[in-house]
Amino acid sequence: MPEVKTAAIIGGGVIGGGWSARLLENGIDLRVYDPAPDAQAKLDAVCANAEQAFAALSQIRCAERGSVSWQQTAAAAASGADLIIESVPERLDIKRAVYTEIETAAAADAIITSSTSGIMPTELQAEMKHPERLMVAHPFNPVYLLPLVELVAGEKTDVKYIEWGKRFFAGIGMHPLHCRVEIEGFLSDRLQEALWREALWLLHDKVATAEEIDTAIAYGPGLRWAQMGTMQTFHLAGGEGGMRAMLAMFGPCLKWPWTKLMDVPELSDEFVDEVGEQCEQQAGGLSPRDLERVRDSNLIAILQALRGNNWGAGKTLANYEQQLMQATSDG
Amino acid sequence: MPEVKTAAIIGGGVIGGGWSARLLENGIDLRVYDPAPDAQAKLDAVCANAEQAFAALSQIRCAERGSVSWQQTAAAAASGADLIIESVPERLDIKRAVYTEIETAAAADAIITSSTSGIMPTELQAEMKHPERLMVAHPFNPVYLLPLVELVAGEKTDVKYIEWGKRFFAGIGMHPLHCRVEIEGFLSDRLQEALWREALWLLHDKVATAEEIDTAIAYGPGLRWAQMGTMQTFHLAGGEGGMRAMLAMFGPCLKWPWTKLMDVPELSDEFVDEVGEQCEQQAGGLSPRDLERVRDSNLIAILQALRGNNWGAGKTLANYEQQLMQATSDG
Repeated sequence: MPEVKTAAIIGGGVIGGGWSARLLENGIDLRVYDPAPDAQAKLDAVCANAEQAFAALSQIRCAERGSVSWQQTAAAAASGADLIIESVPERLDIKRAVYTEIETAAAADAIITSSTSGIMPTELQAEMKHPERLMVAHPFNPVYLLPLVELVAGEKTDVKYIEWGKRFFAGIGMHPLHCRVEIEGFLSDRLQEALWREALWLLHDKVATAEEIDTAIAYGPGLRWAQMGTMQTFHLAGGEGGMRAMLAMFGPCLKWPWTKLMDVPELSDEFVDEVGEQCEQQAGGLSPRDLERVRDSNLIAILQALRGNNWGAGKTLANYEQQLMQATSDG
Repeated sequence: MPEVKTAAIIGGGVIGGGWSARLLENGIDLRVYDPAPDAQAKLDAVCANAEQAFAALSQIRCAERGSVSWQQTAAAAASGADLIIESVPERLDIKRAVYTEIETAAAADAIITSSTSGIMPTELQAEMKHPERLMVAHPFNPVYLLPLVELVAGEKTDVKYIEWGKRFFAGIGMHPLHCRVEIEGFLSDRLQEALWREALWLLHDKVATAEEIDTAIAYGPGLRWAQMGTMQTFHLAGGEGGMRAMLAMFGPCLKWPWTKLMDVPELSDEFVDEVGEQCEQQAGGLSPRDLERVRDSNLIAILQALRGNNWGAGKTLANYEQQLMQATSDG
């Protein structure tokens, strides 16, 4: 499998842009394709944000940033790339058409990853000529700061690519999580969606505003989830008896009507409007772009805090810095 | 309404113990009732942890810690208390019996709060002589570090207690969230339970282990939730278009089978065993007590990081310190 010197970025939106920033910071050259007229300006803005974020996160940096070459087609971007990262809209037909085009131009040993949030790789690879080299590598926004990347193989994926992915993504400062069972939504988005559905119901039924719903997370459970997931957190809710005591105490509550289990609110124009308006109010005059800078600054502070304690995502950061220092002293 | 000089703690488990620690650190004297034989030793351990945690969190401290007086009955604890905090097991019959006993001894103007995770206050107060002074004040573990407290009125609660609660709990360093609509599970636990249900299914169906499920949160979405809830986070998933663009892109996915919506896994002995064992393995030899210290140390680091940015729970901490400094310079 190739060492990645050049990567193709197919789709330069929030996720493709985030990938670009992380790869560039790690010295990888990019061939980018995105048909949107303002794609280049947007990507430049994301990369500028990310460069500042990386500088604030750590004093240890990769020696030389990568370069960007814009291409007119997905095939042209894929040509000559060691790794091809697809981040186009979440529609199976669009993604399959992109793979067909990519395969006309990609090198025989190029690896193709999809950033899909939850479409099964077996579905994605069904019409490919060389399906064995496609896998899901699902990152999280902002891709240049959050370490998690879910690796998922389809039925036809060669498992050697999963092993390769574990090494490669760890090498660019990420925390690869191999989702061993192929399931729609994988792990992280299933958990996120459960929360998200309930949040939409609460807003829809006028139980609470967007801001109140977020307060209920960010001032309580969210502070725990930055360091421990829901299982380990609840392992500590049972006192010295751990999870077993917790299940004995709170298990029965799971059967009480504490969530809107059965359905999804209708995303009518009116409801979308209501949600959108509340989120804009909540932002208190900050544009999404402004708010991104606040979020990044908070993420950096949290990651540094966790690194100080050598825990969770802070450990990932510490390991990454150690690798960079090693590479510098070797080179 | 009384200034709180003395509070009664009815039930000294994980939550009652956490309340005790926070109140003592704020100079409030306690009258504690818990029938468990080892209750006093446990409470002392929690308070010792909390004292260290407070010292590490902030150099600004309340001048004089409160004192603890152990009582033999709930009535004796309630007698002479300005505020009575009930944190007994999540069973309506047990809680109602406790209120009946408390009311035989409580001062006429004493306020009674329940720490219930989700039982509706209208249910709790149904058999009380003076139901107007009962409300829910639902905190989060560890109560001495997490700022969130949900305030919920029942049908018979006098709203003046909600206003009082907003002031009082802010005064002891918390972030009161008034849940305006009475609903089972309130806000935070509805959101937590949605996640928790999905996590249990993933483990139950052997899609992932406890550790993998937690990795899917703590290395990605959890780092966002420490500072922004799910609404504001997704407001930033749509790029410059914010939440409206996000809903246009990902709204349809909500209808895909990305969560186990319909049911709850059966908590059989075998399943409880499996969950318990995985959580113990995940802890890697750390007892729940050890792990609590790690968690507290991480929470302190995260809260300080957010205070450095004057954001979210960090703002709560900064406000609290300002109040303490003000009080010191006044006194």
